[in-house]
Amino acid sequence: MKKIENEKLRVIPLGGLEQIGMNMTAFCYGDSIIVVDCGMAFPEDDMPGIDLVLPDITFLEENASKVKGFFITHGHEDHIGAIPYVMRKIKAPIYATKLTMGIIQHKLEEHNLEKSVKLKVVKYGTNVNAGNFRVEFIKTNHSIQDAAALAIYTPVGTIIHTGDFKVDYTPVFGDAIDLQRFAEIGKKGVLAVMCDSTNAERPGFTQSEKTVGKAFDNIFSENKNSRIIVATFASNVDRVQQIINSAEKFDRKVVVEGRSMVNIISTAIDLGYINIPENTLISVDELKNYPDERTVLITTGSQGESMAALSRMANGMHRKVQIQPNDTVVFSSHPIPGNEKSVSRVINELYMKGANVIFQDVHVSGHACQEEIKLIYSLVNPKYAIPVHGEYKHLTAQANVVKTLGYDSDSIFILSSGDVLEFDENENARVHGKVHAGVVMVDGLGVGDVGNIVLRDRQKLSEDGIIIVVMTLDSEGRVLSGPDLVSRGFVYVRDSGDLMEAARAVLRDTMDRMEEKHVSDWPKIKNEIKSDLSDFVWKETQRKPMILPIIMEV
Amino acid sequence: MKKIENEKLRVIPLGGLEQIGMNMTAFCYGDSIIVVDCGMAFPEDDMPGIDLVLPDITFLEENASKVKGFFITHGHEDHIGAIPYVMRKIKAPIYATKLTMGIIQHKLEEHNLEKSVKLKVVKYGTNVNAGNFRVEFIKTNHSIQDAAALAIYTPVGTIIHTGDFKVDYTPVFGDAIDLQRFAEIGKKGVLAVMCDSTNAERPGFTQSEKTVGKAFDNIFSENKNSRIIVATFASNVDRVQQIINSAEKFDRKVVVEGRSMVNIISTAIDLGYINIPENTLISVDELKNYPDERTVLITTGSQGESMAALSRMANGMHRKVQIQPNDTVVFSSHPIPGNEKSVSRVINELYMKGANVIFQDVHVSGHACQEEIKLIYSLVNPKYAIPVHGEYKHLTAQANVVKTLGYDSDSIFILSSGDVLEFDENENARVHGKVHAGVVMVDGLGVGDVGNIVLRDRQKLSEDGIIIVVMTLDSEGRVLSGPDLVSRGFVYVRDSGDLMEAARAVLRDTMDRMEEKHVSDWPKIKNEIKSDLSDFVWKETQRKPMILPIIMEV
Repeated sequence: MKKIENEKLRVIPLGGLEQIGMNMTAFCYGDSIIVVDCGMAFPEDDMPGIDLVLPDITFLEENASKVKGFFITHGHEDHIGAIPYVMRKIKAPIYATKLTMGIIQHKLEEHNLEKSVKLKVVKYGTNVNAGNFRVEFIKTNHSIQDAAALAIYTPVGTIIHTGDFKVDYTPVFGDAIDLQRFAEIGKKGVLAVMCDSTNAERPGFTQSEKTVGKAFDNIFSENKNSRIIVATFASNVDRVQQIINSAEKFDRKVVVEGRSMVNIISTAIDLGYINIPENTLISVDELKNYPDERTVLITTGSQGESMAALSRMANGMHRKVQIQPNDTVVFSSHPIPGNEKSVSRVINELYMKGANVIFQDVHVSGHACQEEIKLIYSLVNPKYAIPVHGEYKHLTAQANVVKTLGYDSDSIFILSSGDVLEFDENENARVHGKVHAGVVMVDGLGVGDVGNIVLRDRQKLSEDGIIIVVMTLDSEGRVLSGPDLVSRGFVYVRDSGDLMEAARAVLRDTMDRMEEKHVSDWPKIKNEIKSDLSDFVWKETQRKPMILPIIMEV
Repeated sequence: MKKIENEKLRVIPLGGLEQIGMNMTAFCYGDSIIVVDCGMAFPEDDMPGIDLVLPDITFLEENASKVKGFFITHGHEDHIGAIPYVMRKIKAPIYATKLTMGIIQHKLEEHNLEKSVKLKVVKYGTNVNAGNFRVEFIKTNHSIQDAAALAIYTPVGTIIHTGDFKVDYTPVFGDAIDLQRFAEIGKKGVLAVMCDSTNAERPGFTQSEKTVGKAFDNIFSENKNSRIIVATFASNVDRVQQIINSAEKFDRKVVVEGRSMVNIISTAIDLGYINIPENTLISVDELKNYPDERTVLITTGSQGESMAALSRMANGMHRKVQIQPNDTVVFSSHPIPGNEKSVSRVINELYMKGANVIFQDVHVSGHACQEEIKLIYSLVNPKYAIPVHGEYKHLTAQANVVKTLGYDSDSIFILSSGDVLEFDENENARVHGKVHAGVVMVDGLGVGDVGNIVLRDRQKLSEDGIIIVVMTLDSEGRVLSGPDLVSRGFVYVRDSGDLMEAARAVLRDTMDRMEEKHVSDWPKIKNEIKSDLSDFVWKETQRKPMILPIIMEV
């Protein structure tokens, strides 16, 4: 950690910090860059057909030789999902705690990349040297086990990145957050804290995960005569542990259903992060050997995802499990913003099939509320605050919480993706310049080949469809056949006969006019066709389909 | 109300009672039909390009001569929005209270229908005779004034339809709900109650609208130095009244912005439903004559609707109002399910422009919670319960509330659109048969010309775009030009060159094969093109664009 004269520490968020929540931050000093987290995001409503969204890593590619390592705070997709894509372009080791690394390893195997990436499991409290940086992993609590905050020691000062966290004094597995270590580092002086903002709008404290265990005991005790199906987040191993605990207590066999959940639970079993009594787990095919009231299914689909196991059970498309009138279905989750409608749809379908549905008070958040945020700031006592993780409104909410602790606006930085936050050797901070940042969309096998033009076309196509105008011209520009019109997504064909005939007449006039004026320039002809036809269609229907003229020559 | 031997009373919901919440119910007896409410709905996510959704009224059209009247409970779009469309097909008078009728009249004027429809304003407590029915309007409270429940007296018994309602003991304008009348009718014996289920999942009582007035006073008192912008529902006249009251108290001028709000407030002023002190209202152009801290804007856009006034202010597209760093923006609303993301987007944009945003505890619902539902059932004491208004989960929640009052499953009916609920003269009830019901989609000027095929095409187009294959054949079926490929919404053109060239090669092979085999049947050729090209594209990109072969002949 040699100090270089006049060199500055630069902190650069590279995941979209605004609506698109994927996490990736670069720390730069001298010839060293380290990267914290490497997340992906799911597409927004205005990205039809897109499968997932990645951070644009042009900046890292341009500085690839400087990248000393990736430090991952925990195993959620918005923190690890871009790893397989980024590892194809940047060669640097990945550092993470044991369970997080298990999940990363599985992901790399799916992409056949497990042999080409160096993975280094790190224990809490140990330090990793990476160029001009030293990084320490600190125990925290979150809705997935083995979450870590990072103390990033730099030549200019220490930055603490909390990752996603909550304070859980009574965790289901392992230790509580290491508040003493936060205090110890704070006592020595901390330049800045980058703190989770997800729940910064909520006052008070987030409840302990253990409270959900009690809720399950109550549900199991009140529904002794029905099969129980619990939907929750695939990665919440502690939640699954608690359901299994209740199942054991009430003498039920457990089925785990849904690919992503089976994956993560297998990893957790392999690495010793979950404790399942012998003869408790059964396969879905064995369900029929037990009476309903002796079984519980733990399943994916708590967000109403249309292809997840619970959704397929609810709409009757699941091959092995049918919802029955006596089932009790528990949503151990809260809808992520944007998923409310899908969740409601599944709940409605479950009720229609006669199931009893429980969806209130069977979940706690994995993110810190206002009092926990205040606690971290008070223990660490940083010079600067950099709210992270959340939409702009959440970052603003954390800024407002931090202001109540006495910080003024000059010591709080809300950064946008690509902003360069610069710390000089006197610990002065300012946002200075911007690097290229943004999103790359993945559609099928294509990474980055769908851009804004394609998306705009898709949206236009979905609004009012397309009308294709084809005709064949001879080499002199005379019409040999057509103009013919074909439409899709515009008007139901049965109803469109007269309209299409009238449109053809309009275009025949257009072509007569072109011939009279001796226009043989194709782009000009196409423009006239577009303009005449869209005027006609708007007048008749008040719709604006995409109009695509195609001219063939023979 | 002559009793006809062996004749039955039939109650038939005709608006979608499930996900699509538009309200319309037919009551049939002998040669008489009356209709309660006539609502529209907004399109779901899977209806791209659709502007609005109407109930399919085939059943009413087939029985048009029997329809004696439409009885409207209140002036919200999901209860009145289909009136202009339905009135073109069914000739029958409309009955409603004064403000409700004012809003209906305005709507009919927009459709140039005001002269062809008979409108009859009804006072609370008066009775309307309509064929075999008599209908009484009963005062209720809701988030729009002049809401009514209906007592529908039939030869078989009395049915009470609550409309949308809450119990507000301290309403802002006019009287509290007429609980005495509910009790009085109940005392005489009621066959069934059709009761609002929207809030049936929520325990307790809904707060009085007046509590929001206090919240505004606090906000005005704590933000004396900034301009205040309040977004709320256009039709909530009482809410607007309370904002104006606070404005007057704190000496601010008021601007009303947003077309739908200006419309309803004008109607409310004309009919005496709002009390605005002289010299309080100013136009948006006069804003510049007053210091910011002396003004308040009341605006549409509380649901994040992209074209509404507040959204345009937030994204800088409003022509007359710019958001400034010192503005206080209040969301006096709660996001309707499905709008959470849009609302968040607007809040984020407002924060980015430096505004202070308040969106908690400045709204109360207009719908009854569980205790109010129990109150109505206890006053009316009906033989049967028919939960209405809400998704299936809300109807189920009301059924569960009603069960706690001692009703058994046999006396509770959850109906689907088109279900015929039949009451015989001995007050026995059963669901017997189904009439044609469903939705009609409106896109631009077209009513009903977009059906499921068009929607499916639009969705497919939006997912992966379209590839059009054109070629010209001579009369013998030999290829004269092409196959040429044109795509939209598939892959950005710059990146697609090689792919399209390879695809063309695939299709040249296809055509060679067709020529060798002497296939000249166009449908067959088109099928081969589709199948070869989609296999190729899937293999190369894992996408499934729509493939549209077009063959021209010269």
